[in-house]
Amino acid sequence: MPDNRPVANGERVLADLNALRAIGTYKTGIHKPTFSKPHLASLHWLVDRLPEAGLTGTIDGIGNVIATSQRSGPKLLAGSHLESQSYAGWLDGPLGVVYALEAARVINSDPSRQGTVEVAAWCDEEGHFGHFLGSRSYVGRVSEADIDAARDRTNGRSMREALRDAGLAGQARVMAEPGRHIGYLEAHIEQGDRLESSGLAIGVVTSIVGIWQYRISFAGEQNHAGTTRMGARKDAGLALARFCVAIDERFPALSGPRTVWTTGRITLDPGALSIIPGAAEMLFQIRDDDLAVIARLETRLRTMAGEATASGPCSVTLDRLRTGTPAMMDPRFQSAIEAASKVFAGARSVRMPSGAGHDAQVLATIMPAGMLFVPSIGGISHHWTENTADADIVTGAQVFVEACLTLLGQ
Amino acid sequence: MPDNRPVANGERVLADLNALRAIGTYKTGIHKPTFSKPHLASLHWLVDRLPEAGLTGTIDGIGNVIATSQRSGPKLLAGSHLESQSYAGWLDGPLGVVYALEAARVINSDPSRQGTVEVAAWCDEEGHFGHFLGSRSYVGRVSEADIDAARDRTNGRSMREALRDAGLAGQARVMAEPGRHIGYLEAHIEQGDRLESSGLAIGVVTSIVGIWQYRISFAGEQNHAGTTRMGARKDAGLALARFCVAIDERFPALSGPRTVWTTGRITLDPGALSIIPGAAEMLFQIRDDDLAVIARLETRLRTMAGEATASGPCSVTLDRLRTGTPAMMDPRFQSAIEAASKVFAGARSVRMPSGAGHDAQVLATIMPAGMLFVPSIGGISHHWTENTADADIVTGAQVFVEACLTLLGQ
Repeated sequence: MPDNRPVANGERVLADLNALRAIGTYKTGIHKPTFSKPHLASLHWLVDRLPEAGLTGTIDGIGNVIATSQRSGPKLLAGSHLESQSYAGWLDGPLGVVYALEAARVINSDPSRQGTVEVAAWCDEEGHFGHFLGSRSYVGRVSEADIDAARDRTNGRSMREALRDAGLAGQARVMAEPGRHIGYLEAHIEQGDRLESSGLAIGVVTSIVGIWQYRISFAGEQNHAGTTRMGARKDAGLALARFCVAIDERFPALSGPRTVWTTGRITLDPGALSIIPGAAEMLFQIRDDDLAVIARLETRLRTMAGEATASGPCSVTLDRLRTGTPAMMDPRFQSAIEAASKVFAGARSVRMPSGAGHDAQVLATIMPAGMLFVPSIGGISHHWTENTADADIVTGAQVFVEACLTLLGQ
Repeated sequence: MPDNRPVANGERVLADLNALRAIGTYKTGIHKPTFSKPHLASLHWLVDRLPEAGLTGTIDGIGNVIATSQRSGPKLLAGSHLESQSYAGWLDGPLGVVYALEAARVINSDPSRQGTVEVAAWCDEEGHFGHFLGSRSYVGRVSEADIDAARDRTNGRSMREALRDAGLAGQARVMAEPGRHIGYLEAHIEQGDRLESSGLAIGVVTSIVGIWQYRISFAGEQNHAGTTRMGARKDAGLALARFCVAIDERFPALSGPRTVWTTGRITLDPGALSIIPGAAEMLFQIRDDDLAVIARLETRLRTMAGEATASGPCSVTLDRLRTGTPAMMDPRFQSAIEAASKVFAGARSVRMPSGAGHDAQVLATIMPAGMLFVPSIGGISHHWTENTADADIVTGAQVFVEACLTLLGQ
């Protein structure tokens, strides 16, 4: 590496992240729902920093900040999000925005280089109002009617009202310019324990999993819990419990190395102490980056439902609620991150899929995309105790800037 | 049987039951919650019928009708309840009240006999406001503070307000007079399918089961459903499902012939699609008339919770929410019902415990008590389709009156 190659300023990165944590602080984390005052203040904080990086930008008509440069030459888009889950961590989102800002600061200000990093903060990645509304707007997949229909899941406030209250009503939405960027790079905390448990510093994301969701319904017979003999029962709750256990026994043989499945909610009907549940329902999710694996598991699920119905005493039906195509990260981006990890992280990196969804999966539909992860302490996320060691944050920033330089041909 | 022995008038019994069904009709059943207008109208209907049976009575300060006679000689108390579950059946309660009324009509009016049947309609057996408040008041186990605290589970209306609206505020509560009655007899629909499935007409109740209730709580670790590997999870929902299935596998070997157990409600926390449940809870109930069986099952439950905690990854705790002593029915009452079944039901009777709770279990704490069941079509109860064949209703009335005569020494 030549001596004059620009490097991330770790202290500046930590200072920026702490400045963002000071807006909407909750314990050691933040409470910054989409379009809350602290979220809007954070967006303004970012807009105010842009000139330091030779960029200009404002908040657009859906709450995205997309900063641009007049410089010629190759341009890389980089970013993440600034709103948080409710009462959650300080790095989920801001880390990727600050890394992008830092890369823009050190790369764009260097007159000896041609490459430019442009910075994005995508609105509502955390889904308070919808499903990646900010990045999906940028790639042209959000209609005005979608915005009309969007409401805050927590308090029911419409997105239109939130945009009006934020002074953004009538503001134009910035759309992707075909060919403007060589690709998109995003950094994020891992939100799992793989890096930490292996003593690694960098996750080189190979893909972002597809999420498939199902409602599995059990129909039995509601009856009196005192007078109905065990042998005469059609207990939908018990049928559901058996099904959960059977999934756990039968899925592993058909899974990939990182397949995950989760029963997130169970409801018994009527849900009273003295009544045998006549109906029951579970919400079930499968995530994998290999559609063949998901297809295999869904087939198994359908077989199991059929077998359970046939053997009785309850019938089982499966409704698919959502499908999701896995997003593959660009091989050149993976190589650039891996190479940068050799320089700044002693090659302590591993290629891995992302089990969580990220804006990069949306950007990947229109341009090459890549992601890097830094370790999460204890694998904890979506909780205010979420954290990453300062040293890992600094290493991640250095790897990120170096990967940007490589991708820009420097 | 001597020719002049009084017999129930089946047509009159059916007419009375249909008259009560016409008050608060819902489809082929009734909707008659405690202290609703149809419930109060039904109580007044009963009060108006009492003179036909040589009885007098009013609605007392807790909504009971307890009708008395001035006649000397042995007195038997008989009855049931007139309110219903919401949108439920026409016989659950009214059957026992009308049988008692019919027994009083045919027995009390016979000047050649000494015995007297007194009639009771116990308020709120169905538990809209509490737990057997009417019969428990009569046996001296309900304080004024209990009434102050009672509220309608459905709409939150206080019992005091309901009593005031019914014109019963300040009315005295009728209390049991020690030694007044030789015992208490109650008829009820079976609410199960045992009689129907065996072609029987009469259930001779041997005991009313005790109900023991538990909250079983599972503590795991809430985490991201995408980024947390299967092997690293502490899924409280899955631990709960395993526990339900294990109960079903391990309880039968320790149970009695009529033991029943039910998981009526399951809650996962936080109950979201993309979050591994960090906590889960199930409400669980055991019913049996043998305390030794219940004790054995509770011990097994505690052992299983301990084993599950020890083997991990979630910990399991057991909280006992309610215990209930089984109520034994008086052997003389059982014999009287069985003998009457020989006369009027071709001996198509069987001795059986009651899996459901009834006012007879409360009365049994202060006097000898007995119960008889008539068949429930399809075993259905707590639903408006609940029904019993007219012929079975008439047979039950005849057996009931004959058993009353026997118990009164006639």
